[in-house]
Amino acid sequence: MRLEVGCVIRMECPQPTPLILLLRPRSGRYQWIISERYALTPHVPATEYVDGFGNLCQRLVAPPGLFTVETSAEVDVAAEEAIASGAPYVPVETLPDEVLVYLMPSRFCESDRLGAVASEAAGSAAMGYDQVAAISQWVYQHLTYLPESDPSPVSALEVYARGEGVCRDFAHLAVALCRSLNIPARMVAGYLQDLEPMDLHAWFEAYVGGRWYTFDPTRPGNNKARVTLAQGRDAADIPVFNQFGPPVTPSRMDVFVRPLSR
Amino acid sequence: MRLEVGCVIRMECPQPTPLILLLRPRSGRYQWIISERYALTPHVPATEYVDGFGNLCQRLVAPPGLFTVETSAEVDVAAEEAIASGAPYVPVETLPDEVLVYLMPSRFCESDRLGAVASEAAGSAAMGYDQVAAISQWVYQHLTYLPESDPSPVSALEVYARGEGVCRDFAHLAVALCRSLNIPARMVAGYLQDLEPMDLHAWFEAYVGGRWYTFDPTRPGNNKARVTLAQGRDAADIPVFNQFGPPVTPSRMDVFVRPLSR
Amino acid sequence: MRLEVGCVIRMECPQPTPLILLLRPRSGRYQWIISERYALTPHVPATEYVDGFGNLCQRLVAPPGLFTVETSAEVDVAAEEAIASGAPYVPVETLPDEVLVYLMPSRFCESDRLGAVASEAAGSAAMGYDQVAAISQWVYQHLTYLPESDPSPVSALEVYARGEGVCRDFAHLAVALCRSLNIPARMVAGYLQDLEPMDLHAWFEAYVGGRWYTFDPTRPGNNKARVTLAQGRDAADIPVFNQFGPPVTPSRMDVFVRPLSR
Amino acid sequence: MRLEVGCVIRMECPQPTPLILLLRPRSGRYQWIISERYALTPHVPATEYVDGFGNLCQRLVAPPGLFTVETSAEVDVAAEEAIASGAPYVPVETLPDEVLVYLMPSRFCESDRLGAVASEAAGSAAMGYDQVAAISQWVYQHLTYLPESDPSPVSALEVYARGEGVCRDFAHLAVALCRSLNIPARMVAGYLQDLEPMDLHAWFEAYVGGRWYTFDPTRPGNNKARVTLAQGRDAADIPVFNQFGPPVTPSRMDVFVRPLSR
Repeated sequence: MRLEVGCVIRMECPQPTPLILLLRPRSGRYQWIISERYALTPHVPATEYVDGFGNLCQRLVAPPGLFTVETSAEVDVAAEEAIASGAPYVPVETLPDEVLVYLMPSRFCESDRLGAVASEAAGSAAMGYDQVAAISQWVYQHLTYLPESDPSPVSALEVYARGEGVCRDFAHLAVALCRSLNIPARMVAGYLQDLEPMDLHAWFEAYVGGRWYTFDPTRPGNNKARVTLAQGRDAADIPVFNQFGPPVTPSRMDVFVRPLSR
Repeated sequence: MRLEVGCVIRMECPQPTPLILLLRPRSGRYQWIISERYALTPHVPATEYVDGFGNLCQRLVAPPGLFTVETSAEVDVAAEEAIASGAPYVPVETLPDEVLVYLMPSRFCESDRLGAVASEAAGSAAMGYDQVAAISQWVYQHLTYLPESDPSPVSALEVYARGEGVCRDFAHLAVALCRSLNIPARMVAGYLQDLEPMDLHAWFEAYVGGRWYTFDPTRPGNNKARVTLAQGRDAADIPVFNQFGPPVTPSRMDVFVRPLSR
Repeated sequence: MRLEVGCVIRMECPQPTPLILLLRPRSGRYQWIISERYALTPHVPATEYVDGFGNLCQRLVAPPGLFTVETSAEVDVAAEEAIASGAPYVPVETLPDEVLVYLMPSRFCESDRLGAVASEAAGSAAMGYDQVAAISQWVYQHLTYLPESDPSPVSALEVYARGEGVCRDFAHLAVALCRSLNIPARMVAGYLQDLEPMDLHAWFEAYVGGRWYTFDPTRPGNNKARVTLAQGRDAADIPVFNQFGPPVTPSRMDVFVRPLSR
Repeated sequence: MRLEVGCVIRMECPQPTPLILLLRPRSGRYQWIISERYALTPHVPATEYVDGFGNLCQRLVAPPGLFTVETSAEVDVAAEEAIASGAPYVPVETLPDEVLVYLMPSRFCESDRLGAVASEAAGSAAMGYDQVAAISQWVYQHLTYLPESDPSPVSALEVYARGEGVCRDFAHLAVALCRSLNIPARMVAGYLQDLEPMDLHAWFEAYVGGRWYTFDPTRPGNNKARVTLAQGRDAADIPVFNQFGPPVTPSRMDVFVRPLSR
């Protein structure tokens, strides 16, 4: 199916402010960018590079005063997420080299300290896809969802202790639990259809049965279309809006996701 | 300044035909993609990857029958090309590692066989930028320009022997001559404002004075705006339209480049 | 000068145990591998890849029973570390793309939570190299050194709260403080001459004045030769010994570093 | 089995001469470096990087006068090459992204001009491994082997016209013919056991049945152990000895390959 997605960020900078943004979706195996728009007002020079996780990163310096970033894209995606109950666990020694980095503990996913929780969450599920599905469901049931976005992310361990969090926190805990079982897992930031209230969303992917599969512990069973903006080990790798220097205020972000008929 | 660029490719495939296309310009140091469009008719699944030269490559299988690829982009580019007379030659031992590949002979640029011609073309110009400018000018004067695109590229050595060629051939000869003097040089494919007749264009860049500079041996002094689609060692690295299997007929490509007021 | 460095790891595995090791030093800008040895007893198949931070990573499965890894290398290194008092801070917007990843908070370096400490540690030092030197010195004075290696690393924030740690912890705190000031910093694991007791060592590098400089907050002023094994954002990126599956016991590591006359 | 391999290069440089060498074998999927030695006499600073094809490349400036490079390695390799008659052709659209570059014509492998020869060479062999084996055998029978190394490589088309060549030329023709059939193929430079007279050797690999397989058109059926030094699209990508500036004379290279008992 086809989605139109985008966001508008308005900010007021007290001084020239370097930014790194991850707001340009990339065509890849699971999505195709039909059209795309990225406007800076006032217009300033900007450059772009590909980071170590494959994301397109935009670099620019926001000028003093009011500054607006407007992005939008028409994207073709699968109408339904791939589900693969029974897809097997891939032993560490046969994983592709480039997947290994997603086995390690990372800033917000202390998988080396959550072994006991992972065993409980996975329960008696078959090794592989079914374990990940069980973990995703367990996180959904174990945590209370907070609709309000929290500016400073907390780690999986803290999320587990608090028992509540936003979509990013749900994803962090699920990712950490998968890695505790030696299942590669990564965080994804992007757009989800019919999110309420509309905002950027976070979910995760796990590598089982020889490929990456999508899981959303905030919305299990909600089989809505989604568009990936960025992927990494956790939120520290993929700050879609990363600002250097004195804090920028007031910043405001409006997000939209609309299905398009073809 | 801002340009609107794009192309439409129509082809008739006798059977499913794998394609690799390099038709999505990338934001980088010298250009910024404001908006972009990439449509396949009929629509087929497509994926994208970044090749070893930093180009976005689209992979897809064209279905039997009529198939159309339509791409366009609004791009912000410098109104004038950077000129740096006197920028010095960079000794081989201090070149950045990733630039070294552009010193080697390649498919269409047999720099190891053109030393004498390079010395003649560079003449007594100062080492570095001025040598490249002299080579670009020499190629312009030495070759006769053929407006008709030739489907099968020939090598710099053949171009030199023939004394004539299209823009791609001019670029190949200039690139080979630069490398003969141990100056890194690479081929660029893209759009040029006011090209007559309008088509995709080829030029080259040379690495002197610590960065890449643009040169166009087909149109020296013609300081028109340009948009890069792909860069590589020569045309073999950057086939903007690469088709596998039985030849596709009739194929037709329409290109447009229009200045936009901002 | 020339050093002979190496380590021997002996372990007893209850079952086949996947390992990823970062024990092969790589020739690079600051060290040259004259000779090198890497033996597995009993011998098992092993492969190697380069990770996203440029480290050579060895993959293998240790067999059940006693297993020994023996590595050694003769390496040419600078006799004295480069010191560059006054080397300037590089503004974020002019950093090379590939350096940006070392600005972000990471697993053990929560630079986003240590801004006040960083200001105190850097004091009134000039922006750039001198700030990093001040931070390194401050960490040295602020923390109590524990000679015993601690198996589970703690984060910079925890290190700061505890006021004590091993070399790895000193490096984590210093790295986090540098990043708090928007100075790229990375962790290094390797060999240090005359370390007492001898073991693998950890220190850090900061990017100022257009290149990476070495700092050792455990041993400031101790200008001893060193050999890099691996570099990354923090200890989570560069586990020189990374084991999957049930814990391996008893494991023992012997390290040696000897100067060689040439 | 285990091989000891190495080479000694002696040269006389009239002036400081930048070199890029590809003489350090890398551990990988098919070989493991047990020990390794790389000495420069007189000793000069040297650095190393990984090129776009995964090879370790050594950069240095040879000083005026006599200069010697001595390298050796003990390497564990398979005693017998993997043979996979019947392994299927991989359609272009399902090849891994990173393999696609080995489908394109390159400097010495003009696969776009050898379609008719490729059909003849492959004959009626089954698509995939068997076609490659037929091509390798056809090249062996069609070309006359010249034991003397020729300093300037010629292209596959020239080799075919001449009907004779050295190992490098055999490999170039075979690689070009495979690519003509849309089978990815790459050139390999390295050491071969029992080569007579002993020298560095060149062979090729083709991607069929989901992995790379080794073929040696100079020595079909000679199932000797081999060690890879470098791999690329053709000889232009992997100059194991690449010298910039005025030619170096007299240069001499001694190569040795010895089986070791374990």
